[in-house]
Amino acid sequence: MRPILPAFFAAALAAAGPLAHADEGMWQPHQMPQLADLLKARGLQLEPEALSELTAHPLNAVIGFGFCTASFVSPQGLLVTNHHCALGSIQYNSTPERNLLRDGFLAATPADELPADPSMRVYVTDEISEVTERIVGELPADLDGRARFDAIDAAGKALVADCEAPGGVRCEVYTFHGGLQFYLIRRLELRDVRLVHAPANAVGEFGGEIDNFEWPRHTGDYSFMRAYVGADGRPADHHADNVPYQPKSWLRVARDGLAENDFVMVAGYPGSTNRYRLASEVRDAIEWLYPTRVEVIDETLSIIAGETADRPDAAIRYAGTVASQKNGRKLFQGHLDGFARIDAVGIKAAEEAALLGWADRQGERGKQARDTLAALNAELAAAAATRDRDFHLGQIGNGGLLGVAVRLRRQAHENSKPDAERELGYQERDRPRNQAMLRQFERRFDPQVDRALLAARLQRYAALPADQRTTELDRWLGIGADGSAPADLARRLDALYAGTGLGDTDQRLHWFAASQEQIVAADDTMLKLADTLLPVILRLDEENKARSGRMAVLRPRFMQAMIDFRAAEGRPVYPDANNSLRITFGRVRGYSPRDAVTYAPFTRLAGINEKHSGEEPFAAPADQLSAIAEGRGVGPYRLASIDDVPVNFLSDVDTTGGNSGSPTLNGRGELVGLLFDGNYESLASDWIYNPAVTRSIHVDTRYMRWMMEQVDGAGHLLREMGL
Amino acid sequence: MRPILPAFFAAALAAAGPLAHADEGMWQPHQMPQLADLLKARGLQLEPEALSELTAHPLNAVIGFGFCTASFVSPQGLLVTNHHCALGSIQYNSTPERNLLRDGFLAATPADELPADPSMRVYVTDEISEVTERIVGELPADLDGRARFDAIDAAGKALVADCEAPGGVRCEVYTFHGGLQFYLIRRLELRDVRLVHAPANAVGEFGGEIDNFEWPRHTGDYSFMRAYVGADGRPADHHADNVPYQPKSWLRVARDGLAENDFVMVAGYPGSTNRYRLASEVRDAIEWLYPTRVEVIDETLSIIAGETADRPDAAIRYAGTVASQKNGRKLFQGHLDGFARIDAVGIKAAEEAALLGWADRQGERGKQARDTLAALNAELAAAAATRDRDFHLGQIGNGGLLGVAVRLRRQAHENSKPDAERELGYQERDRPRNQAMLRQFERRFDPQVDRALLAARLQRYAALPADQRTTELDRWLGIGADGSAPADLARRLDALYAGTGLGDTDQRLHWFAASQEQIVAADDTMLKLADTLLPVILRLDEENKARSGRMAVLRPRFMQAMIDFRAAEGRPVYPDANNSLRITFGRVRGYSPRDAVTYAPFTRLAGINEKHSGEEPFAAPADQLSAIAEGRGVGPYRLASIDDVPVNFLSDVDTTGGNSGSPTLNGRGELVGLLFDGNYESLASDWIYNPAVTRSIHVDTRYMRWMMEQVDGAGHLLREMGL
Repeated sequence: MRPILPAFFAAALAAAGPLAHADEGMWQPHQMPQLADLLKARGLQLEPEALSELTAHPLNAVIGFGFCTASFVSPQGLLVTNHHCALGSIQYNSTPERNLLRDGFLAATPADELPADPSMRVYVTDEISEVTERIVGELPADLDGRARFDAIDAAGKALVADCEAPGGVRCEVYTFHGGLQFYLIRRLELRDVRLVHAPANAVGEFGGEIDNFEWPRHTGDYSFMRAYVGADGRPADHHADNVPYQPKSWLRVARDGLAENDFVMVAGYPGSTNRYRLASEVRDAIEWLYPTRVEVIDETLSIIAGETADRPDAAIRYAGTVASQKNGRKLFQGHLDGFARIDAVGIKAAEEAALLGWADRQGERGKQARDTLAALNAELAAAAATRDRDFHLGQIGNGGLLGVAVRLRRQAHENSKPDAERELGYQERDRPRNQAMLRQFERRFDPQVDRALLAARLQRYAALPADQRTTELDRWLGIGADGSAPADLARRLDALYAGTGLGDTDQRLHWFAASQEQIVAADDTMLKLADTLLPVILRLDEENKARSGRMAVLRPRFMQAMIDFRAAEGRPVYPDANNSLRITFGRVRGYSPRDAVTYAPFTRLAGINEKHSGEEPFAAPADQLSAIAEGRGVGPYRLASIDDVPVNFLSDVDTTGGNSGSPTLNGRGELVGLLFDGNYESLASDWIYNPAVTRSIHVDTRYMRWMMEQVDGAGHLLREMGL
Repeated sequence: MRPILPAFFAAALAAAGPLAHADEGMWQPHQMPQLADLLKARGLQLEPEALSELTAHPLNAVIGFGFCTASFVSPQGLLVTNHHCALGSIQYNSTPERNLLRDGFLAATPADELPADPSMRVYVTDEISEVTERIVGELPADLDGRARFDAIDAAGKALVADCEAPGGVRCEVYTFHGGLQFYLIRRLELRDVRLVHAPANAVGEFGGEIDNFEWPRHTGDYSFMRAYVGADGRPADHHADNVPYQPKSWLRVARDGLAENDFVMVAGYPGSTNRYRLASEVRDAIEWLYPTRVEVIDETLSIIAGETADRPDAAIRYAGTVASQKNGRKLFQGHLDGFARIDAVGIKAAEEAALLGWADRQGERGKQARDTLAALNAELAAAAATRDRDFHLGQIGNGGLLGVAVRLRRQAHENSKPDAERELGYQERDRPRNQAMLRQFERRFDPQVDRALLAARLQRYAALPADQRTTELDRWLGIGADGSAPADLARRLDALYAGTGLGDTDQRLHWFAASQEQIVAADDTMLKLADTLLPVILRLDEENKARSGRMAVLRPRFMQAMIDFRAAEGRPVYPDANNSLRITFGRVRGYSPRDAVTYAPFTRLAGINEKHSGEEPFAAPADQLSAIAEGRGVGPYRLASIDDVPVNFLSDVDTTGGNSGSPTLNGRGELVGLLFDGNYESLASDWIYNPAVTRSIHVDTRYMRWMMEQVDGAGHLLREMGL
């Protein structure tokens, strides 16, 4: 990214006033010094430079934790994250006799700590280096799409392989601004992680799916884990002789909590945003992508409900799928509702027009910008022309038992290549995760449901126009050359499910180790269908890679134009979220979700008793309810403006999925909360940030401390944190 | 009611401070002078005495209108009420070709006004007199329950007959404080009522059932009618020669609207409250009455949905039933939710204990109060012992086709007595209304649905313990002496529905005119079942009357004790609502429905565009949306605090069903709004007034005027109102 012109920026800041805008932006740490004036105006008391050092306090206390974020809070490797991020490890240790999920868990001493879910890893970033030149620096400008894709892919894989060679680290190349910049990030991978403390599920998930994305919220979404290393201080597998990892730094919990309008910042690993998409892409999302997703989810939910109606065992197998589909439905519908609040396409079109207008005033750049935009739109239109085919084939080939078969067939195909040339996700480094996935499939599979879902997907595919279908699948389905309906689908599906052994875990693992020749020769109907589909999938992959290669030229050009345009206006540009560490700042702030309704930024203990109905997910534990009713120990944690202990709070920091568990810091860099959700009205902000209603939801450390002190008896952990 | 001690009252007022309490109370007009200090402190600028005169301004402008309230707003008989109160008349004039309900209606001149629904009556109260002495003054103290009931009943009927003898008036005896006081109210009955103006349904019912009882609200719930009389000035049937009724007074619409915290008062005809019920009655409501009602409604809704699933014609017939059942469900569940917000039984128990404590300190009164309470509780316990029987027999005998048969059978039974001795509802004066009901039954009847509902009711009855059932119905159902399940219910119902002609309107009207002998001899299975049930119903009636007679001694004693106790505390007592004219006052005020959520007291025009989705009930008319989007004509109606035209507002006046359409007046007695609903959180306030959350919902006259001026072109009506 080009340097910002500080003079312009300061002028713009002065003109806007310190509180004129909510502070959109998921900033790369190295950008923080550029924002120094703004940060100070907002209330940052640390030197902004302190926030640019990935390997110094406070950022080196912030770590990747599964798909979440966590932070170290003691010199002995104690870390805090969301309850929902630790859920796998809590469930892993739960048995009907000792139901930790329901009852919560507290290790009285380190010896009582329990091993986390074995797939759990803690990633401590220890190096970040820009590798743009090494990836695209020497690529000829006229390289075609497919070759460009391969060159970028190969360069990235080589960098990762080099980086990981010494062992004990995990490396990844992160793409910024659609390929304008690349960074190689090296992270220490700690494999021995243990569960230290989790509140009861009725606290940690209070409100459950009903309150998901909602405010007001009263969720104790925190849990404590501890990272361990071998006696030599190096990452090691779980072992009794391991010792707590001693992080280079850790966060201090603030003694004084926040009040309304106070400065806050959040450091974490946001997953993905689309802030620089074109107007045409927003229109596509509104008119096709999200409505289609909602429609398919509704169908999926209705099929699962129907097929499991009288079969509780099958219903349990799909409980996780149902929960995630419902979550997805709310997410996608939330995007549509958010787009409808604003003139989403119009806003993007105006942005593009402003950029082009500025570029025109720079002479030749105007034509360049117009050409880039036109070329991008042409690529997008080409992709849109096959979007139905791609979406519905994706539904068929990625889910359920057929998805497993396709994965096994693809693995064998990739295995026939040298490791470095294999697709991402099919390399040797991915083997343990893939094996675990194949094993866990048994817990969420029922052949009757699987078959009904596949039947529905195939019907949708069959209903596509002929130019959106493929010869291979048409032939398998018995769709005539005249486009007639699939013949005997039920019979075909009977045979498909009768003739496969992939429902059996041992067989799945057996085929995972098989060669391409063995799989092709396999006497398994599902693997045979996967073999039929493989050429289709590879063909689509080719198309995608060629398009990605072409986009890898166009997107960076567009982003460079955007960055230059904004620099001229004194506005720095942050990249779209891509799972790399970011900092966002803002203030504690409520909002008005609709006419005549105001949401205050803090919820209270009393609100828990108010919501408590005794029925899940609003069944607070009896000891918590009585502690609240008695007003026990409120004093030290009381917030004057609400005359109670604050439970959750809202801020206007700019976050998205992946930020869960992120530490929320005050102006002194002290821990005041844990981010755990965004509000429903903010969902479309993944595309267009709407400052009026975009809020993040945090659990207040005062609530966490009050619970640990008054309800869960976790005083020793508070002391370990220096409280 | 005994006089209040002004000294005590003033002291209590001074101690409490003018805004310490929301002002609970549906006051009788004659009580207003007693509240003079409080009213002035709150902001009343009229002399309180002006509010005690039923036959002077402003109260004589406030009139009963069906089950609603309305008010005169011009010297030419123009009256304003809620859109939902005028709905019957709008529907009556609607045709597929000229859909007034959908499009709204505006009479350009009086000649264009349309006749109201023929059953519509306007009642102008013209005399009110206490008749307590004439009803219970000479009853011996030791009269038994049944005889006391009859004596009160006969005295009331005689007073009504005398009063109505001159014609053109409707008289009724109203019971206050459970029989401590009786008032005879005479009202002029105007029969020629015409529709003048209604906004489009999408305005008048904006938000529909979804927003029912909800805030924030954006409903244009107003309509205009006009009352006509004969050329001689006396009430007359609809006729072209009739002339507008000239009311003695009419309300002026305020030029300046309200702001938050402003004083408001509402005059109207609230239907029924239970503010002086005992703790045991509240417990019964929480544990049995409302849960049972909700359960039966859920069953009813599910049966109607199932039986009309593929039959749109049948679905239309039950659309009204479904709407009212859903409304009832929300109402009853709202009661339960409201009770759960407070310690409802505990509050009542504490009130009773305080009363008894005070009575104990008065010497002998303590024992009297305790005896009364014990006797009341014994009567209530006796009633509770048969509550299941009474409730489920009521469900069987009052609804559907069997309900019609029972009504016809009962009418014939009553017809055999002199008119004055007949039950209320079966007298000659009730004939036109009963005939209309029998005729209209055809629009909401389908034999398949009716049969399924009756079957479910009978199953519920059959499941009652033997001592809650009756020999007659058990025999009809074929329930064995051993309490075995009803035999062949389906066959019995087949025969019941095959052998009745009551589905036919002519036959219903025929039997309405029949003698008891003819009905008993009728060859109609449904009438035969009604004949079987009649002795049961009469027996239950006897029990009820005897209990009512005994309660008619006990309730007044309890209320007298309550009145004396409160008088000693300086607190006047208002009677429970009973459809008589009441005044309530308070201020414009939002509330917090739950932790961290605040409701502002005014909604804005912008909120209509926000809620507008294009789908009913959120499909605002295009001309309204564009007027809002353009900000057309906002100036004169703008409320500074919201920078927009206020649409609806909240106040803490104390109202209930029947208050719909009531004029909302400012401190000068000018019209500032029309009450049209209460919020969900207030529903349990019918039993226990909860000042924190009890709010009434009003349409702001500024919205009404803006709509009439900017959207509906009703300037001539605004001018008629002097604007």
